[in-house]
Amino acid sequence: MFVYADCAATTSMSKVAIDTMTKIMNEVYGNPSSLHSVGQKAAEYLLKARMDMANILGADFREIYFTSGGSEADNQALISAAYLGKEKGKTHIISTTIEHHAILHTLDKLKKEGFDITLVDVEKNGIVDVKKIEEAITDKTALVSVMYANNEIGTIQPIKEIGKICKEKGVLFHTDAVQAVGHVPINVKDLNVDMLSLSAHKFKGPKGVGVLYADKKINLKNVIEGGAQERGKRAGTENLAAIVSMTEALKEAVENVEEKAEYISSMRDRLINGLSNIEHSELNGDKEKRLPGNVNFCFEGIEGESLLLLLDSKGIEASSGSACTSGSLDPSHVLLAIGRPHEVAHGSLRLSFDETITEEQVDYIVKSVEEVVVYLRNMSPLWDKLVKGELKHVI
Amino acid sequence: MFVYADCAATTSMSKVAIDTMTKIMNEVYGNPSSLHSVGQKAAEYLLKARMDMANILGADFREIYFTSGGSEADNQALISAAYLGKEKGKTHIISTTIEHHAILHTLDKLKKEGFDITLVDVEKNGIVDVKKIEEAITDKTALVSVMYANNEIGTIQPIKEIGKICKEKGVLFHTDAVQAVGHVPINVKDLNVDMLSLSAHKFKGPKGVGVLYADKKINLKNVIEGGAQERGKRAGTENLAAIVSMTEALKEAVENVEEKAEYISSMRDRLINGLSNIEHSELNGDKEKRLPGNVNFCFEGIEGESLLLLLDSKGIEASSGSACTSGSLDPSHVLLAIGRPHEVAHGSLRLSFDETITEEQVDYIVKSVEEVVVYLRNMSPLWDKLVKGELKHVI
Repeated sequence: MFVYADCAATTSMSKVAIDTMTKIMNEVYGNPSSLHSVGQKAAEYLLKARMDMANILGADFREIYFTSGGSEADNQALISAAYLGKEKGKTHIISTTIEHHAILHTLDKLKKEGFDITLVDVEKNGIVDVKKIEEAITDKTALVSVMYANNEIGTIQPIKEIGKICKEKGVLFHTDAVQAVGHVPINVKDLNVDMLSLSAHKFKGPKGVGVLYADKKINLKNVIEGGAQERGKRAGTENLAAIVSMTEALKEAVENVEEKAEYISSMRDRLINGLSNIEHSELNGDKEKRLPGNVNFCFEGIEGESLLLLLDSKGIEASSGSACTSGSLDPSHVLLAIGRPHEVAHGSLRLSFDETITEEQVDYIVKSVEEVVVYLRNMSPLWDKLVKGELKHVI
Repeated sequence: MFVYADCAATTSMSKVAIDTMTKIMNEVYGNPSSLHSVGQKAAEYLLKARMDMANILGADFREIYFTSGGSEADNQALISAAYLGKEKGKTHIISTTIEHHAILHTLDKLKKEGFDITLVDVEKNGIVDVKKIEEAITDKTALVSVMYANNEIGTIQPIKEIGKICKEKGVLFHTDAVQAVGHVPINVKDLNVDMLSLSAHKFKGPKGVGVLYADKKINLKNVIEGGAQERGKRAGTENLAAIVSMTEALKEAVENVEEKAEYISSMRDRLINGLSNIEHSELNGDKEKRLPGNVNFCFEGIEGESLLLLLDSKGIEASSGSACTSGSLDPSHVLLAIGRPHEVAHGSLRLSFDETITEEQVDYIVKSVEEVVVYLRNMSPLWDKLVKGELKHVI
């Protein structure tokens, strides 16, 4: 059996996304900035995609900025709010300890430039307490940035409530919704967000393309300077094929999104129940307030990498933490943030999937993980010490 | 007849580029950072593309950084050299007046941050005098950035010579080779460049992808922060399909590049000779030291936009200046830099083409431009004054 259970790292492209890409590559090669008809045909497709994207997100088409992906969108959102804030003497930014590195590393850079950064802790369930965000806001606060759903443990944050507070206090609010868009219903106005980042390859669109939604009132700062594309806010010839393909992929993803989410959630819960039966295992993140297709477990005494490789040999493609940091030896900052000790934070397993997952696949995953965990524990000196009582169980 | 003569704005994708894109989209969807076999398969393709790209450019594969395009590569090159220089007290950057806006606008940003910017003038033929670059270098100079070939008038700069001087003086040297790569032979070591930018959609590759070549000694600064992709210097899930497609497109482009360039140059010269017969017209930029596929003319008394629209109606897709600034009412900064007066700098025509151009197409362009120029001049109050001697001809 083969199960691709790493949709949070990237998805395969949908048929409509590939077909759209191929159509545009073949038929609409013009530069949308060119005045001639080949260029203007491209410009029409670009405008249509912008309007479709705006429509899906509940935004105005002038609030859609196409970027090279989620990371660029995150960078631009933070840099824009920081520098706009600075112009008014506001140099404080609030975020959380479990953000994606596109946020955390940009905040590091801004910190070096003199901005004050507050990273609010999350609770044990991986969800931020709205009150802690509220308490962190001062009259110097330029921006609050909280991810919609965590990329490792899938927990969904109280975005609407945080947005409401930010609105009341006159503070800009950004959400990195890379993991959420296409998987749960998202409307920027309902959510009270001023900026939102998304990435196409997380919802079966192409890689290398994303969106920064920014409310009309925000005069974005450029991350990439040059030509006057994207209302002068993002230079570079528009990646039309990818932009149109992304929009078509998202249209399909949001169709019956609630029904699909319900089914995926039922598979998620079946998987959580199955894996919970493995002794000294524990789910990371809230059991309910999480993405439909995200399961993340810790297994005591297990090395994440060995677990992945053995699962791979059984045809199960999974990950340990996020793909972006897979080469890193550090434990997951997200698992540390929810209170997992170092030795356990190394041994997590993330399974992320879409509506094509079946009961048989879920049961196969449970059986396979169980086998692999037993096998690895039998070889583990750490587990040996735990069994002999020389070390204490932490799970 | 239909002639796409706007290849400097963007090219249509080659069959091999589209086929490669489609193959990767269908078969290699993994995230190269994932440890499982789907991810590792993607990682293998990525490494192969990086080695192929390095091989074509005469670089080491660890010197290839995949970006979202030429603009991003230009931004990163300048920002990296500027900040690296600043760490050593070097805050002076030299470039030219005819660079692409991806360079000029990034320099504007750096100027606001306190860097000293020297923009060296070019000669009347659109080529920079090497001596002027040399004279501009001080012990504060962190970087010289000179484009390989101009995007409007196609003039080719003495890159190797400038590189030699920079090497002798210990100054970093970057070239924006977006218009040149794939059209003329390029080897970074031969050229003495430390950094080079290229963009795939200028040589029949996909849009939204490019390369920054940077010598091993350069510890690049990130433009996009986040995950550890591209040796930690460019965050964001790698756009694998586009990267592999770009590399295949470039392989094809550089195959017999000299022979193709010779044929394209012969068509260019035929076109230049034909258009020169139109009275009060003049070629912009050096007649010989220019890209094989670039022709750029000024026609006195003509509005660029009307010229383009009428040519479009005759099936000729051309441009006036660069596509990136087509919405702008300002005259071309490049034409002003080579000494064209404002009224003439508004009326330029850029024809840019590849090896598919035929003699028949060239002759059709000449005939069509002639007709359109006569037609427009007959309607032009400005031309009327010139004819009556109330105004003096400048061409």
